Amino acid sequence: MKTPIDIVNEMMQKDTYSQWLGIEIIKVEAGSCELAMTVREEMLNGHQITHGGISYAIADSALAFAANSRGQKCVSIETAIAHIAPIHLNDQLTVKCQEINCGKTIGRYESLVYNQHHKLVARFNGTVFRHPENW
Amino acid sequence: MKTPIDIVNEMMQKDTYSQWLGIEIIKVEAGSCELAMTVREEMLNGHQITHGGISYAIADSALAFAANSRGQKCVSIETAIAHIAPIHLNDQLTVKCQEINCGKTIGRYESLVYNQHHKLVARFNGTVFRHPENW
Amino acid sequence: MKTPIDIVNEMMQKDTYSQWLGIEIIKVEAGSCELAMTVREEMLNGHQITHGGISYAIADSALAFAANSRGQKCVSIETAIAHIAPIHLNDQLTVKCQEINCGKTIGRYESLVYNQHHKLVARFNGTVFRHPENW
Amino acid sequence: MKTPIDIVNEMMQKDTYSQWLGIEIIKVEAGSCELAMTVREEMLNGHQITHGGISYAIADSALAFAANSRGQKCVSIETAIAHIAPIHLNDQLTVKCQEINCGKTIGRYESLVYNQHHKLVARFNGTVFRHPENW
Repeated sequence: MKTPIDIVNEMMQKDTYSQWLGIEIIKVEAGSCELAMTVREEMLNGHQITHGGISYAIADSALAFAANSRGQKCVSIETAIAHIAPIHLNDQLTVKCQEINCGKTIGRYESLVYNQHHKLVARFNGTVFRHPENW
Repeated sequence: MKTPIDIVNEMMQKDTYSQWLGIEIIKVEAGSCELAMTVREEMLNGHQITHGGISYAIADSALAFAANSRGQKCVSIETAIAHIAPIHLNDQLTVKCQEINCGKTIGRYESLVYNQHHKLVARFNGTVFRHPENW
Repeated sequence: MKTPIDIVNEMMQKDTYSQWLGIEIIKVEAGSCELAMTVREEMLNGHQITHGGISYAIADSALAFAANSRGQKCVSIETAIAHIAPIHLNDQLTVKCQEINCGKTIGRYESLVYNQHHKLVARFNGTVFRHPENW
Repeated sequence: MKTPIDIVNEMMQKDTYSQWLGIEIIKVEAGSCELAMTVREEMLNGHQITHGGISYAIADSALAFAANSRGQKCVSIETAIAHIAPIHLNDQLTVKCQEINCGKTIGRYESLVYNQHHKLVARFNGTVFRHPENW
């Protein structure tokens, strides 16, 4: 049977977008994970701060890794993100995703995104559907 | 005074992430817009379908353009996205963003993302804060 | 086999809270419905406008009726509501709920709440889990 | 200057809906609060479990009290609730609301609803607009 880190490594190898983002896996346990990345020039928006799609993406990758690490294939069905503070070029982001609840078919997770000053910059909630199929 | 399309062009020039996504502006009116993009190899996730961060990003860019096109600088404070159907490599996405409500300080918008078969693949809702500062 | 209105009547008979709210069923079709109610003295909050729980409740009842009217038992798993304009004592509310998407196990619905001046006062989105059990 | 508990007592006196719900104030501090209530016969839905509008309402009252207790008048603009486990007749609910972030004009709060077995039954997130007017 695959361990949480086996599953996340297998996902990460196919996950070309998380690769492009430069996501680094800090820690994985069944139902939780911690990731890091650094904001680059091509990640800004029209206000010249980091595009909301970037903080969403790292939070969503964390959700995917945390949920799938339990062994069943999970896909996100509904997610929400609050953009709490601006994220700037070269900021080093860390995201911690933890499980709120893991039912038979539905799982809920929260990803919190921090900058290098340990300030909370985004809060993300995600609900996944747990397919009856294993990694 | 700047027109909606002036503002969106100005935003788009600075918006390095929307450029990377390959976002094309189809239509802009005060409070609404329509954008298009095509899914590339580097936009996939660990299930080898399109990463949720991509559909979020195009929907969020549409929100930003629609909200700011009214003339006041707006930033997103809370957004939610439902991933309704899988998006595949090379899919051609269109997003239509419309205003639900535009108050003095708060505006609400909905972005609907469709694939090339006119199927709804994601529904996005966003709330923006309208700064008392003009473009 | 039960029709949509059979199912909603059966639900409404048990639904003591919708009864307390004074909800009136205007229209039911498979996957959609329209309800009405009037705001009473015991429905206000600390600002002396209608409590957010009231507009949420009518929108959520509309979601339940619209989703269950298709025949399978559905429960809400995730919902969001934007409070767009204040609702006052004696306001007559109408809610229209429509289906955004109905998959095998997951359904998505939108409820829009209007006051007697046809002004949109709340926008609600809900995701339901469709149990493999019929009414 | 009014204290957090002064403000919440003043709100509670006008808040006829929280009174109807039977909400009891357990604890109030600037930016947070804890409330309790018991589910009654008239709070059920068509599945004969507690209506989603009830758990939403107690979570939303907690949000209102926590946010307003800081002294500025706050109204909710966007809220979301995940219904995690069924709530039954006579269940004794406790809600704890804490501040995630309190900016100049926008505040974010999380309300967690538990039953008498200390099981998490609902998770609620709310964003408020902070008016430049004091209690």
